[in-house]
Amino acid sequence: MSKPYVVGIDIGGTNTVFGIVDARGVVLASSSIKTRKHSTIEAYLDELHTELTKLLEANDAIGKIHGIGIGAPNANYYTGTIESGVNLPWPTPIPLAQLVSDKFGIPVSITNDANAAAIGEMTYGAARGLKDFIMITLGTGVGSGIVINGQLVYGHDGFAGELGHIIVKRNNGRLCGCGRCGCLETYCSATGVARTAREFLEARSNEPSLLRNIPTEDITSKDVYDAAIAGDKLAKDVFEFTGDILGAALADFTVFSAPEAFILFGGLAKSGELLMKPLRESMEKNMIKIWKGKVKILLSELKEADAAVLGASALGWEAKQMPTPSAIPVTPTPAVPQVTPATTPQA
Amino acid sequence: MSKPYVVGIDIGGTNTVFGIVDARGVVLASSSIKTRKHSTIEAYLDELHTELTKLLEANDAIGKIHGIGIGAPNANYYTGTIESGVNLPWPTPIPLAQLVSDKFGIPVSITNDANAAAIGEMTYGAARGLKDFIMITLGTGVGSGIVINGQLVYGHDGFAGELGHIIVKRNNGRLCGCGRCGCLETYCSATGVARTAREFLEARSNEPSLLRNIPTEDITSKDVYDAAIAGDKLAKDVFEFTGDILGAALADFTVFSAPEAFILFGGLAKSGELLMKPLRESMEKNMIKIWKGKVKILLSELKEADAAVLGASALGWEAKQMPTPSAIPVTPTPAVPQVTPATTPQA
Repeated sequence: MSKPYVVGIDIGGTNTVFGIVDARGVVLASSSIKTRKHSTIEAYLDELHTELTKLLEANDAIGKIHGIGIGAPNANYYTGTIESGVNLPWPTPIPLAQLVSDKFGIPVSITNDANAAAIGEMTYGAARGLKDFIMITLGTGVGSGIVINGQLVYGHDGFAGELGHIIVKRNNGRLCGCGRCGCLETYCSATGVARTAREFLEARSNEPSLLRNIPTEDITSKDVYDAAIAGDKLAKDVFEFTGDILGAALADFTVFSAPEAFILFGGLAKSGELLMKPLRESMEKNMIKIWKGKVKILLSELKEADAAVLGASALGWEAKQMPTPSAIPVTPTPAVPQVTPATTPQA
Repeated sequence: MSKPYVVGIDIGGTNTVFGIVDARGVVLASSSIKTRKHSTIEAYLDELHTELTKLLEANDAIGKIHGIGIGAPNANYYTGTIESGVNLPWPTPIPLAQLVSDKFGIPVSITNDANAAAIGEMTYGAARGLKDFIMITLGTGVGSGIVINGQLVYGHDGFAGELGHIIVKRNNGRLCGCGRCGCLETYCSATGVARTAREFLEARSNEPSLLRNIPTEDITSKDVYDAAIAGDKLAKDVFEFTGDILGAALADFTVFSAPEAFILFGGLAKSGELLMKPLRESMEKNMIKIWKGKVKILLSELKEADAAVLGASALGWEAKQMPTPSAIPVTPTPAVPQVTPATTPQA
């Protein structure tokens, strides 16, 4: 008897959302718990176990789960571990795949949140049918999931696709959480937009702006958006500046993997033409000739909450086959793209 | 009867080198013709046909060629065409795979020279056993061949991997042949090194340098190398500057695909510690923490002439299977790396 469902779990800094998903990508039911409520990972997993078990019982899904897929910050697909440097309240590394698998007796596979979003988009969203695309998540930070020839790029160690940490400003760039300066995410994330607004307000101190009604340190990207929509020149310039930097970065990413499309996801991606117009213009202006007019910028077609759970859940179908680095055979000579059959688990 | 040999052809701006290669990567025999001798592609192909046929006859290889692989500038793997913007004396696009296949009655597959070098290195050189690496060719320009999960990255249109055209200087960057400014290859190619030397000689006009004995416009990267080896401070600084820019670029490339190694190939890669020391230092200095100390910089292990022919020849084994974009099945849900068997044609 093959099992008809998977579970997707999205672990965010604030909330952990989880859902039961069928082979067609329908989220049968979902629920959430607070990520930061527990001081130990064990207590957190206890609550997750209790709440997920309730959800499974209520949906007659006990014993019907093929696998659990988890999207989490800095989660390594190869090792099943959450690595250091993340905004979670527990010591790292966390052997998450093992811990959750032990708890539920179900195979578990994990990847980072941006990769999970890319998988969700490829399976159920704007990237259906695309073999080469790059998912860019514009949230608190900038994340990415790179798909080449139909496969998610993990790199030799499982961490590939950290495009938020491409350096876009080599001199006097903004300090990034990674310890370096000038990373894309210091400019083109939600926090980057707020930072730009604060800089503009200071540099253009004689210019009136609706944003001056808000205490400087409290300004959010949402405030900048609202001001820009209300016609505020300075706020509109913030989006112009943001789109300009992001567009140049997308043009650079294109020379790497020649994607058919970039797919934008996250709060900032909902800024409409305020962001999209300067972004498209900058990408085209900076694009090398052979790709001018050929690379699309698309918006995610998934509801934000669903995308994370759906993306994570797609990994659940593969969980029992999770390879470890030592188990991956070395394939030295595939001189042409290996066309492999789809593994969609259509029952 | 399976055919035991392939032919590799490397079309350069000056010379076209071709050779007969067996399944173990032994170049049985090779020869060359001048690329620019003929004003029409037809006349060029006539000479290539004559000379290659002679080589095949002399080696008892007539009727024993499985396929022909060609490495050529701007050659598109998917379409079999040499596209515009290349330093060849004939009008583009050139349907090269078709023309050569018609001429010889043998299946033909083509790719650009840097991709061919990457395939050569993966099959017979420093990248044997590596599934994730990036080949960087430091010649007249800067080329690249990106291998991810054991597969060469072609992108959605066959042109991916143009890392010489990543922008490394956004303001006042050097004009590139591609029409944009600040591309990596304007700094880190052989011509880039000569350009840097000319700039330094002008900017530091009071400083003595061995390079002042050479007419400024005649200075080559070889001259700069010779002067640096002789202890010339200004020439050594040119390599320092070059390594610094290339190292920062390699650190950026790492966040994209997390390669296990970069493999350097081409004239400039033979500069030894003059280039390698600042290159390694800059790459580590600019590397995001999770990859510090983890990414290798290797030198090509193939003889320069052999590498191009060997790399191109590896494509010859696959030539009969050359996929066209419309023939490639779309694989929507490979959520885990697809581990495919090696296709090395060991008889």
